[in-house]
Amino acid sequence: MPEFMDVHTSMAGVTTEALMAAHQADLDIQDDEGVSFKHAWADPNTGHVFCLSEGPSADAVQRIHERAGHPADEIHEITVTA
Amino acid sequence: MPEFMDVHTSMAGVTTEALMAAHQADLDIQDDEGVSFKHAWADPNTGHVFCLSEGPSADAVQRIHERAGHPADEIHEITVTA
Repeated sequence: MPEFMDVHTSMAGVTTEALMAAHQADLDIQDDEGVSFKHAWADPNTGHVFCLSEGPSADAVQRIHERAGHPADEIHEITVTA
Repeated sequence: MPEFMDVHTSMAGVTTEALMAAHQADLDIQDDEGVSFKHAWADPNTGHVFCLSEGPSADAVQRIHERAGHPADEIHEITVTA
């Protein structure tokens, strides 16, 4: 299953509670697209959030994020890791 | 220990061998700054590489990346995760 790192760039000030709620909103509907969100890392100062997921395509990842109310600004397909 | 996600945006075409070599170059000297690089994810198509690390500061992370020959374009301090 392809792996993706997506980036949100406008989440300045995000709190633990807000990030957990946003992540849960993805988890609640991710099965509809065969996506599995694995982890999210946030920097409230720069407003960047990085989400690691597995799924059939970048479009599938984006559809879940859009339906959950927080479309990604970038989605990168991860094919090399170290 | 603070956690960081740094981003490189100009690594289009990066191969597994090249990423592993770059990562190893960081590991070889990271103790000099008290940094620990944990994982790197790359998208050779967009040229983006995301590196997760722990260390005393973003500057310490950058000093290791600079000495290893691949300064980061962005470094985000991760204070919220989900």
